[in-house]
Amino acid sequence: MNMSKVEPRTLPGFMELLPNDQIRFNEIKEKIKKSYEKFGFLPLDTPVIEASEVLLAKAGGETEKQIYRFNKGDSDLSLRFDLTVPLAKYVAEYYGELSFPFKRYQIGKVYRGEKAQAGRFREFYQCDIDIIGDGELNLKYDAELPNVIYNTFKSLGFEKFTICINNRKILNGMFEYLNLSEKSVDILRIIDKIEKIGKENVIKELKEINIEENKIDTIMKFLEITGTSDEKIGSLKNLGIDTETFNLGVNELETVIKQIRMHKVPEKNFTVDLSIARGLDYYTGTVYETFLDEYKKLGSVCSGGRYENLAEHYTDKKLPGVGISIGLSRFFYQIDKENIIENENKSIAKVLVVSMDESQVEYALETAAKLRDAGINTDAFLEDKKLKAKFKYADKLHIPYVAVIGEEEVNNNTVTLKDMTTGEQKTFTISEIIDEIK
Amino acid sequence: MNMSKVEPRTLPGFMELLPNDQIRFNEIKEKIKKSYEKFGFLPLDTPVIEASEVLLAKAGGETEKQIYRFNKGDSDLSLRFDLTVPLAKYVAEYYGELSFPFKRYQIGKVYRGEKAQAGRFREFYQCDIDIIGDGELNLKYDAELPNVIYNTFKSLGFEKFTICINNRKILNGMFEYLNLSEKSVDILRIIDKIEKIGKENVIKELKEINIEENKIDTIMKFLEITGTSDEKIGSLKNLGIDTETFNLGVNELETVIKQIRMHKVPEKNFTVDLSIARGLDYYTGTVYETFLDEYKKLGSVCSGGRYENLAEHYTDKKLPGVGISIGLSRFFYQIDKENIIENENKSIAKVLVVSMDESQVEYALETAAKLRDAGINTDAFLEDKKLKAKFKYADKLHIPYVAVIGEEEVNNNTVTLKDMTTGEQKTFTISEIIDEIK
Repeated sequence: MNMSKVEPRTLPGFMELLPNDQIRFNEIKEKIKKSYEKFGFLPLDTPVIEASEVLLAKAGGETEKQIYRFNKGDSDLSLRFDLTVPLAKYVAEYYGELSFPFKRYQIGKVYRGEKAQAGRFREFYQCDIDIIGDGELNLKYDAELPNVIYNTFKSLGFEKFTICINNRKILNGMFEYLNLSEKSVDILRIIDKIEKIGKENVIKELKEINIEENKIDTIMKFLEITGTSDEKIGSLKNLGIDTETFNLGVNELETVIKQIRMHKVPEKNFTVDLSIARGLDYYTGTVYETFLDEYKKLGSVCSGGRYENLAEHYTDKKLPGVGISIGLSRFFYQIDKENIIENENKSIAKVLVVSMDESQVEYALETAAKLRDAGINTDAFLEDKKLKAKFKYADKLHIPYVAVIGEEEVNNNTVTLKDMTTGEQKTFTISEIIDEIK
Repeated sequence: MNMSKVEPRTLPGFMELLPNDQIRFNEIKEKIKKSYEKFGFLPLDTPVIEASEVLLAKAGGETEKQIYRFNKGDSDLSLRFDLTVPLAKYVAEYYGELSFPFKRYQIGKVYRGEKAQAGRFREFYQCDIDIIGDGELNLKYDAELPNVIYNTFKSLGFEKFTICINNRKILNGMFEYLNLSEKSVDILRIIDKIEKIGKENVIKELKEINIEENKIDTIMKFLEITGTSDEKIGSLKNLGIDTETFNLGVNELETVIKQIRMHKVPEKNFTVDLSIARGLDYYTGTVYETFLDEYKKLGSVCSGGRYENLAEHYTDKKLPGVGISIGLSRFFYQIDKENIIENENKSIAKVLVVSMDESQVEYALETAAKLRDAGINTDAFLEDKKLKAKFKYADKLHIPYVAVIGEEEVNNNTVTLKDMTTGEQKTFTISEIIDEIK
């Protein structure tokens, strides 16, 4: 039969890994999961598809354009674009059956039809944790999350990273005080450029949108705040701003920093940074961004914050929360590309069992079974190939040991173990082999 | 602001679990994964979305109707409906970079827009393993899979299950011999009803479609084959059928059974069953179905088989394979509903740390950190609530221990541990607590 072939291809923007990279990716995913569970977060696994009406109850603008939305029968469906909206739905839907504070993690794929470009994925993993309060949520939970971030990145082998912490109420409170809330978007756009265009030009542009000089003075004093976390908090208190929102923001920030110290997160791994997350409307209090100190250009590798009301589109219940998210697919792509993690050879099987010929197959299978029973992942090569081909298979899969079974091994009830790294070869009993490999 | 609310709801046919069930579900998923890895299968994680042209290169009929297919921009896209087609694409796409036999597992969600009914899911997990050969694949791999099935279900706590094994070539070969290949679909439809309508009616219906009497005799002799696996194979050889396909099928079946014994799969957990998988066109040799002995009505909980050519729609390379699949979402739904597994209380955190009041928070956080460092998942209750509320939280989440920190504990550098199952309470040092809990 002569068939025309379809070109086997993967869509642009969709990550698909070769086995060795998949093992590396899975190891990171597993470590994040273990770290989240270490803090008692509960697993969730919500559907990828939701009714569009439910998923888009809040969305709009840019987000809505990126959604994978379609009809199936009479149903208007969408693929989730984050894990927060499904969480909001979930908490509202099962409110009566959950315990609060509800601490959940979810690690799953989300979908955004973004322009495809290197490092931007249309299907990507998010690793989220959130803590949802019933009516209220103690500020102490805002300090727990930096501890989770700290422990998670430590478990991934990172030492040099900084969790930047700010509070949205500070900037909002300053704008309130200056009676500039309505111009806040324009002002933020200008002051965000300070590193690029310099102080003088920021002042010039603020004048151009008719901000009074004494107000520009206050804004510039705010932008010039530097020093340690404590010094920054001190400077904020001395700005002469006195509104409820501003004071609340400074107090919350001070409390969160104090509490983070109680968690014994090292000083070098967190800091007050008054410049972060200015642009996110969603958050209402504490905000976090996390940077690898030596690779700041990667942007934040773990962000999040406090929100007033998770599920207002679904329920009258007030459900404040605080959460963080790691965009795992992008993170893996970046740290792999920048060689921030070693591209190590990985294997699932620790041993490959091979027999010299047909008559030793049964003994080889028994050996494999014993190794597996001892908790050792063991592959068995079952093709009739030359020994060389069997070793090549082990080599390509980076399997560290090959257990060779020949006539002698069967007769003596032994196994010859070759260490693929050193090339060394020794003949052992099976229980000795198990000890050697473990 | 007065907002109209959207009803928070989950689509019918989409499994969404409460945390306790999610933990139970994840434990099963994890055990299956561990079992697959124990045999050296490599992980894959292909995209949920593929180009329709690629995904539907082979599909047709019923399958195609169930597909979630839609356009995004200029692209005609579909959600995967199984994990085999993406595997075929993957192996054809990355052929040059893979080692053969290529043993992979994939555990992921697939999508079928089936009629929603209890136990039928539109989004469900499949847990697949496949072994793909390059050009050819040794029959020994057909015998490895029952061993994987055996070990997997054992690891899930099952004892009484039977892996039924057949070979498609046997029936095909018989129809060839009888010169009835063209009527095989009709004949299969009739003989599949034998348990329902009885032997006499099967003979009657076969006559009605003009099968000659001597041929009906052979078919009935085939249907009457009973006994042990070896007796069945003996009876097949004595049927007087002599075509290449039939003989090959019987020989393959005999070899596979012999090899399964070499794997030491207990006789009570596998059997030759000449009635299974008659209907699946996809398979060309060995076929498997697995039944829980006491719950046969659930149908097969793990099925699969040998196929001649995995990726013929994408490549000229001949890639024979053998694979099995567990439909995990359905399986979990069934064993939960039938109480085949206990609906146990599960928790992620092993300990909940609580302080009597504000002044012990720091010590409580230190205690939590030490427990986590010792590998114990530990939650900390940080709301200002009465002690009773804190215990209630632990109780609802089934957390087995509560570590209570009061003034005395801080002063004596101890922790009072309450065993939530027995109600017992003891005061320990932290290192004693770690030993106690472990």
